[in-house]
Amino acid sequence: MPQLSWFTEAHAASGSSIGFRTERQLQAEKTQFQNIEIYQTTDWGNLMVIDGCIMLTSRDNFLYHEMMSHPALFTHAKPKRVVVIGGGDCGTLREVLRHPEVEQAVQVEIDERVTRLAEQYFPELCEANNDPRAQLLFDDGIKYMADCAPDSVDVVIVDSTDPVGPAEGLFNAKFYASCLRALSPGGILVQQSESPIAHLELIKSMRDAMRRAGFGELRTLPFPQPCYPTGWWSCTMARKGADFSGFRESDAAGKTFPTRYYNAGIHRAALAEPEFMRTALEK
Amino acid sequence: MPQLSWFTEAHAASGSSIGFRTERQLQAEKTQFQNIEIYQTTDWGNLMVIDGCIMLTSRDNFLYHEMMSHPALFTHAKPKRVVVIGGGDCGTLREVLRHPEVEQAVQVEIDERVTRLAEQYFPELCEANNDPRAQLLFDDGIKYMADCAPDSVDVVIVDSTDPVGPAEGLFNAKFYASCLRALSPGGILVQQSESPIAHLELIKSMRDAMRRAGFGELRTLPFPQPCYPTGWWSCTMARKGADFSGFRESDAAGKTFPTRYYNAGIHRAALAEPEFMRTALEK
Repeated sequence: MPQLSWFTEAHAASGSSIGFRTERQLQAEKTQFQNIEIYQTTDWGNLMVIDGCIMLTSRDNFLYHEMMSHPALFTHAKPKRVVVIGGGDCGTLREVLRHPEVEQAVQVEIDERVTRLAEQYFPELCEANNDPRAQLLFDDGIKYMADCAPDSVDVVIVDSTDPVGPAEGLFNAKFYASCLRALSPGGILVQQSESPIAHLELIKSMRDAMRRAGFGELRTLPFPQPCYPTGWWSCTMARKGADFSGFRESDAAGKTFPTRYYNAGIHRAALAEPEFMRTALEK
Repeated sequence: MPQLSWFTEAHAASGSSIGFRTERQLQAEKTQFQNIEIYQTTDWGNLMVIDGCIMLTSRDNFLYHEMMSHPALFTHAKPKRVVVIGGGDCGTLREVLRHPEVEQAVQVEIDERVTRLAEQYFPELCEANNDPRAQLLFDDGIKYMADCAPDSVDVVIVDSTDPVGPAEGLFNAKFYASCLRALSPGGILVQQSESPIAHLELIKSMRDAMRRAGFGELRTLPFPQPCYPTGWWSCTMARKGADFSGFRESDAAGKTFPTRYYNAGIHRAALAEPEFMRTALEK
């Protein structure tokens, strides 16, 4: 019998913690950018931790990865060119590549070790990495977006860690302005936007920065995510020169690939704002 | 400076844990039925724990209490007589009494100490206890429902602890049959139904028992709840002799009382089933 233990992330900012029962530590390494640990849990498959923060488990990452990709991709009329900033576990990339309209999906992860460890410990998330439409770059996402040709991308998905450390520069108006410039008309920026209940002020400041950068229409979509602080998370979509009325609902209802959380009804549901968010986020 | 500590509930069945940072323990007592503790937290107000399981915090209980009451009460055409089984913190009772159609709301809590401690440490939840329409009984809810006159109740809300210990008898076909008998035509039973991701088998067996008891139409509504295992929870509604098409959407949209989570959009959203639930729960 292995000695059971718990990996617990105490989230100081919200005074709450989340933990998972573990069987053993599978990996611990210090990369050029951060500390990465992998644990085998008793009930949640493998668990990846970066700088003490839980990034994903095998069992519940489908919630996050599906919600970071499908609402945006089923809203855009024809998402051909997609960029994922961060997302080194490749789970978002896999969901993006399920869409047959996608011709090219570029993942720009700063830390190659995240992807190499995902290939080893979360192989199911990496199963699309050899898709000929996929391009895996290990580089600085801020620089990548700044250098992107104007009007060259249909969807940008910012699948980053929290806005401290390496990801800090992904949460400001300068970065969003790069994204806006790179997006084609009707293009959509999606960013993970933390917990609706614990980070409402952060969500407001993110949205303000997106507006200052020139994005008009915004939507913040809440979804459950047991492994993140408070168990409740969100993504925020911002659109270039269009509103969010174009949801391809019949395509979503007739989607040709499996999902575990997302479907057309969940898409509509995620657009419903809880009363406290509606009040806090209205201009 | 008080010595900060953490109260953590390790949920053995799911191999996950939730914790809150505490400033001090305010109360610890063994009642006739269970052990109750109250803590003052740093960020979540007061925290009530029963037999080691987190029951509620001041900060996030609105999610649970609103979702246990408003979807059912805005679905019933005219909810005049409501029974709450359990619910000793009085938060569900308060939400029920916000509805002007309600003429009588009876709360049947087995452990009077839960209510007395709620009055002391969660006074905002008890602010409707002196409403002339409210009746607080401290008695066995199973017996209460078995003795109810047929067709005498419009909505029964089972706001119980987990299906072990005192609440075990609230999760079986015999109890549901009592509820069905007590409900008037079109009446609605609502039961807290645990975590969609951790307790799917329990949800299925609850729903099977509701069907065996004679309920035809069922709906399981997920909602976020940071203080419960996995941070994701649900309630299940079962209806006597009617489907769920009667949602009084314009009444919900024009509701005359404040809410923090629930609104008409959230009502519709909660009826959307995540793909894995839809697959698991379809007959």
